[in-house]
Amino acid sequence: MTSLLRRCSVLLLAAWLPLWGALAADAPPPMLGFAAPGASAEAALEGRFDALLDARDMRTWLERMSSAPNHIGAPHDKANAEFMLEQFRAWGWDAAIETFDVLYPTPRRVSLDLVGPHPYHASLLEPPIAGDRTSAHTQGALPPYNVYGADGDVTAELVYVNYGMPEDYKDLARRGISVKGRIAIARYGAGWRGLKPKLAGEHGAVGCIIYSDPRDDGYGAADTYPMGAGRPAQSLQRGSVADMPVYSGDPLTPGIGATQGAPRLERSAAATLLKIPVLPISYQDARPLLEALRGPRAPASWRGGLPFTYHIGPGPARVHLLVQSDWSQHPVYDVVARLEGSTYPNQWVIRGNHHDAWVFGAEDPLSGNVAMMAEMKALGALKASGWRPKRTLVYASWDGEEAGLLGSTEWVETHATELAAKAVAYVNSDSNSSGILGAGGSHTLQRLVNEVAAGVKDPTTGATVLARARAAKILESRRGGRDADRRLARALLDGGDLPLDPLGSGSDFTPFLQHAGVPSLNFGFGDDEPGGVYHSVYDSFDHYLKINDPDLRYGVALAEVAGHTMLRLANADLLPMRAADFATTIGRYVDEVEHYADGLRGETAEMHRLLDEHVYELAATGTEPVGPPAREVDVPFLNFAPLRNASGALQLSAQSFDAAYAAALAEPTRLTPTQVATVNETLRRAEQALLGADGLPGRPWYRHLIYAPGLYTGYGAKTLPGVREAIEERQWAQASDYTTRTANALDAYRRALDAATAALH
Amino acid sequence: MTSLLRRCSVLLLAAWLPLWGALAADAPPPMLGFAAPGASAEAALEGRFDALLDARDMRTWLERMSSAPNHIGAPHDKANAEFMLEQFRAWGWDAAIETFDVLYPTPRRVSLDLVGPHPYHASLLEPPIAGDRTSAHTQGALPPYNVYGADGDVTAELVYVNYGMPEDYKDLARRGISVKGRIAIARYGAGWRGLKPKLAGEHGAVGCIIYSDPRDDGYGAADTYPMGAGRPAQSLQRGSVADMPVYSGDPLTPGIGATQGAPRLERSAAATLLKIPVLPISYQDARPLLEALRGPRAPASWRGGLPFTYHIGPGPARVHLLVQSDWSQHPVYDVVARLEGSTYPNQWVIRGNHHDAWVFGAEDPLSGNVAMMAEMKALGALKASGWRPKRTLVYASWDGEEAGLLGSTEWVETHATELAAKAVAYVNSDSNSSGILGAGGSHTLQRLVNEVAAGVKDPTTGATVLARARAAKILESRRGGRDADRRLARALLDGGDLPLDPLGSGSDFTPFLQHAGVPSLNFGFGDDEPGGVYHSVYDSFDHYLKINDPDLRYGVALAEVAGHTMLRLANADLLPMRAADFATTIGRYVDEVEHYADGLRGETAEMHRLLDEHVYELAATGTEPVGPPAREVDVPFLNFAPLRNASGALQLSAQSFDAAYAAALAEPTRLTPTQVATVNETLRRAEQALLGADGLPGRPWYRHLIYAPGLYTGYGAKTLPGVREAIEERQWAQASDYTTRTANALDAYRRALDAATAALH
Repeated sequence: MTSLLRRCSVLLLAAWLPLWGALAADAPPPMLGFAAPGASAEAALEGRFDALLDARDMRTWLERMSSAPNHIGAPHDKANAEFMLEQFRAWGWDAAIETFDVLYPTPRRVSLDLVGPHPYHASLLEPPIAGDRTSAHTQGALPPYNVYGADGDVTAELVYVNYGMPEDYKDLARRGISVKGRIAIARYGAGWRGLKPKLAGEHGAVGCIIYSDPRDDGYGAADTYPMGAGRPAQSLQRGSVADMPVYSGDPLTPGIGATQGAPRLERSAAATLLKIPVLPISYQDARPLLEALRGPRAPASWRGGLPFTYHIGPGPARVHLLVQSDWSQHPVYDVVARLEGSTYPNQWVIRGNHHDAWVFGAEDPLSGNVAMMAEMKALGALKASGWRPKRTLVYASWDGEEAGLLGSTEWVETHATELAAKAVAYVNSDSNSSGILGAGGSHTLQRLVNEVAAGVKDPTTGATVLARARAAKILESRRGGRDADRRLARALLDGGDLPLDPLGSGSDFTPFLQHAGVPSLNFGFGDDEPGGVYHSVYDSFDHYLKINDPDLRYGVALAEVAGHTMLRLANADLLPMRAADFATTIGRYVDEVEHYADGLRGETAEMHRLLDEHVYELAATGTEPVGPPAREVDVPFLNFAPLRNASGALQLSAQSFDAAYAAALAEPTRLTPTQVATVNETLRRAEQALLGADGLPGRPWYRHLIYAPGLYTGYGAKTLPGVREAIEERQWAQASDYTTRTANALDAYRRALDAATAALH
Repeated sequence: MTSLLRRCSVLLLAAWLPLWGALAADAPPPMLGFAAPGASAEAALEGRFDALLDARDMRTWLERMSSAPNHIGAPHDKANAEFMLEQFRAWGWDAAIETFDVLYPTPRRVSLDLVGPHPYHASLLEPPIAGDRTSAHTQGALPPYNVYGADGDVTAELVYVNYGMPEDYKDLARRGISVKGRIAIARYGAGWRGLKPKLAGEHGAVGCIIYSDPRDDGYGAADTYPMGAGRPAQSLQRGSVADMPVYSGDPLTPGIGATQGAPRLERSAAATLLKIPVLPISYQDARPLLEALRGPRAPASWRGGLPFTYHIGPGPARVHLLVQSDWSQHPVYDVVARLEGSTYPNQWVIRGNHHDAWVFGAEDPLSGNVAMMAEMKALGALKASGWRPKRTLVYASWDGEEAGLLGSTEWVETHATELAAKAVAYVNSDSNSSGILGAGGSHTLQRLVNEVAAGVKDPTTGATVLARARAAKILESRRGGRDADRRLARALLDGGDLPLDPLGSGSDFTPFLQHAGVPSLNFGFGDDEPGGVYHSVYDSFDHYLKINDPDLRYGVALAEVAGHTMLRLANADLLPMRAADFATTIGRYVDEVEHYADGLRGETAEMHRLLDEHVYELAATGTEPVGPPAREVDVPFLNFAPLRNASGALQLSAQSFDAAYAAALAEPTRLTPTQVATVNETLRRAEQALLGADGLPGRPWYRHLIYAPGLYTGYGAKTLPGVREAIEERQWAQASDYTTRTANALDAYRRALDAATAALH
């Protein structure tokens, strides 16, 4: 407690720590899945684990691994994999590098010019910044580009499309503006980057430029680096534009591992490859282009932070965009290490973080990777002392995440059968920073995460990381302002568990959760800084220590959160999952989609009445009148009964199961090995029941019927996606179809639970 | 109808005009207050009136009157008054100039310097703009200043206070920043300008700078003039900073006319005079000052459109602010004209618009003033043809509005007794532009305004101005998003009347309505352009024709709306007022204040729980942590029963009265002159029953218990102000006191209605 108080430098929180679950030295907190004796042993083990974590190790590894560019194909990327392999083995792990061969285009020629009315040649350069050492050592880095954009050499009028999301194209249509035959310039934000060129192409654009507006992550958000966390004027965001919401991984091998002899699609048949050329640029390079646009003034919500009036165009700005890539295959190097379980060697608890980056990647991804390495070193030391996990620990440092979750996806696809038979859970991390714990994942794991987070102290305040995360969620929910938000805030204040965020995409959990049905979690600390060096040269070691986590204290906290989670999953008597958390979350999602459909019906009817009565035309003022919105398809009443029935039955079954589970652990001596095996196998496989045989509409690779990345949000999660997105897209037959499919999956999940409950009685 | 279609240049609306009340040639629309024969005659009269309106006249007067600076004391201001006097007389009006002597400080020396860390001398100049002729002829214009700011010569650290509103000071306190002993720099917007230096002074600041941020009305809102309606970089907003929510008019003669011999306060005793020096500047001059600030980053909602990260300070920027004024008395020239009523010469229907401006004032106020002149010329021509209004028309062009409604206030105070005995209503206009009719005022006049607006065609679309205003209100309400907003949108779609906006302040209706209890209206056309030349040199004739109303068609529309309103008020058999509109509006206001108190109670309780549980501290991240908000006084349950009872009874009485009124007009031959006199006198005086003997808390000059400018919003209206503001300020005893006072006023109003109803039976 003394050291805890000494670390509480910013705020004196000691007096009220009990209210928010300070770490009590005496009574161990409840521990889901463990009978009493096992819980005490587990707590002691986690204490030994924590004592073995060392921030200085992380700092050393971070500096080394981020010292040179480490994208796919870079020598330093391979060197990092080999360095880790050597370390993992030295720490006692059974480790190997697993290699896949993937399509990974790299730019041969890229250029961007404003050809008129005033010529401007885009620099596409991120210059050295004083105080940021690696920014002066970018030899071997790739030119800025968006991987999987098409080759192209186009000259056309420019059109500003705001964030380039579907709503933006509706706004353009109301102004009579089309991108057809033109080049769209979109700003980063509001949806996944790959959607911007995809939608631009679908609307007829011949090219796409994506720039970082200073309002979003530049000086409008924070002082620019090195003064603060804002994006410098010449900095730009690289990134993949593969159509990842269709499938992740190598574009040429959907659904199968990209091993050397694997059958491959022709490039022209690869659904995730973009059809038009695209280039990311800085706001320094974007400024002359945007300033040269005329045509209607951009609507208020489209205006960024550059000091002039934003116009939409088209033209008179004309732009020449050139992208030519080398479309070679490259190897990716996954470093996979095992620590075999003593009791259940065929039950795998998997942990991963990627190691490839866009340039140096100190924050993204190495900050998370070095925390994972610290866990592995500590676990290795425990092993050296004679300890073994009950279940097998599998730790993996993935390659090729940035291009499209390549390393993790190909590994999951290659080992699909084994994973279905053995995987218990997957715990992911990626970039880390400091502040508030973010936690997303399968809701059966929600209670586990709350218990783990209640046992890890926050380095800044000395409170638990759970207390801070709950406080942040309370304020965020209150800002949200909707009734559901306020109910959540009140529930949290009344002691309710921190809800896990549903997982969309954007990191390596996607193939595990959404393709293979492995219960998954994702962890990382963060704050509300703009992240203005994301995917730029300036995501460096110097930057990380200055801006993110100066003494790697949150690296230690991440290792504790992820490490404790892994240890509990590995050692629990019964797998630490609570069915009711999943069931009540499903109930909320069903409410949401029904409420959404009702709202959309009313909104559509009202909009049609406004159209019928010419309200839009009458209210339009100004010299640039905005036409009425397009008429939409009316929203019928949909039959949600199958979902309601499935959800209601699931909630009852979940309560029965959880009660039987708790009763069994209260008298562990009466549990037979068969009962344990039945319950654990049920829990291990339950999430697989949520996979649909045909996957989601138009994207069979995404099989999970509860969680998916949105087809039109990208990283953002859609829950009950088959139903929700069908309603959003006004596909009523599809909505009905997926209501039934999703209900059937929930029924299958429920029946498995019922069988396990019966086995426990 | 043909000409109507020809004018419909933007949109072809003819097909659906019937839906939205096109002007029907055959059946005259209903006409409140008129029996059938009178209604037909009135419709014919208005047709003759319309035919006499000429946009070319307006253009000529506008060019002439805005050709030189016309602030108080400027030769051209007096010349304009004399020009109008001559015209009015030539048109057959009984006209005179009425002069008052007011305190009107003018700047002798003003300067602003950034003294460190990098010296900068503010130019305080608005240079000539090509294409804007008068901008090169500013001889005789005053240096930019905020009239009624204090003299001062101060040098101190600078602090950015966002809009300088009460919430902003709460945000500063959470960051531990005070303006005490410092100079506050606030941006224009979010509340009345006079509140900014007032609140800065109350928080200890020694000076205040107000600048126009480009995000609010500069390039962030629209291309800058002359390209568009945005404020040019060197343009600045002059304006009064008198504490007008306490009283309007001459600071030295509150409540009495500023005639030559009137007793005057010492300057030190004048409550509306500011205590610290203040200066308005452009964003070109503000930029070096703001850019030199350090200290915490400004919160997201504080960030403007300048291309750097906004910081709060204090310092290191230090500023030297100098303001020295000549505190002389000056005459103001009200031009007042009468056209005596044939039947009820002692019932006055009053119309006004001011003629003074900050510099040239083509839009503010001359665009409204020339429309009023066109009405007067047309009425004069009707008089020359032998016509007379039944009631006396009083038309006034006020002087000194910009400094604090000086001309109108002193006139109302001087003629208070006569107004109480004779005034029927006051119809105001001020700046005009084009697009959507804005209409605010006493809710007994709501039906009249709807009927009038249904009879005036919109110059752009050919629909009625009512149809456009209703359409705009529907979309605005839907954007509002609250339940009450959506109910209003639906009610309007279902054919409900356009509600009048309640009047706050900002123009000459204030002394009539809120001090003298004269039922009042305010009209003007506008759109959603930023108004970026407001109170600058560039509010010019050239600007007006380019940006606002190129061929003065909306000047004609304003003259029709205001003129028809005047004619109906002058000629109606029974005064065109409908009690139920007032009563149901009161019912809504009572709902609002009760709902507001309930929400504040819940919000306060939740906020206290968050404080008790240290949620704010736990959720705070970053190197510039924000402390928790200050604890507020808990909100008790308040007794709204007196207001509910008064409002309920009023609604019943209003229905009875309106029914008796309609029945009487349906059989006008059975109406006796005594009945007519009783009803009209009741309606004429009813609004005076809403005046409280002691006025509003802390500001006895504001006597109206239903409508007031907000003490902390300025121009923005507060309804049931004694009650609402007491709750906002958590003054529970005062809230209770004003609940009773307001209920008593409503009871008195109701009893008058009941007596009139009885007289009609």
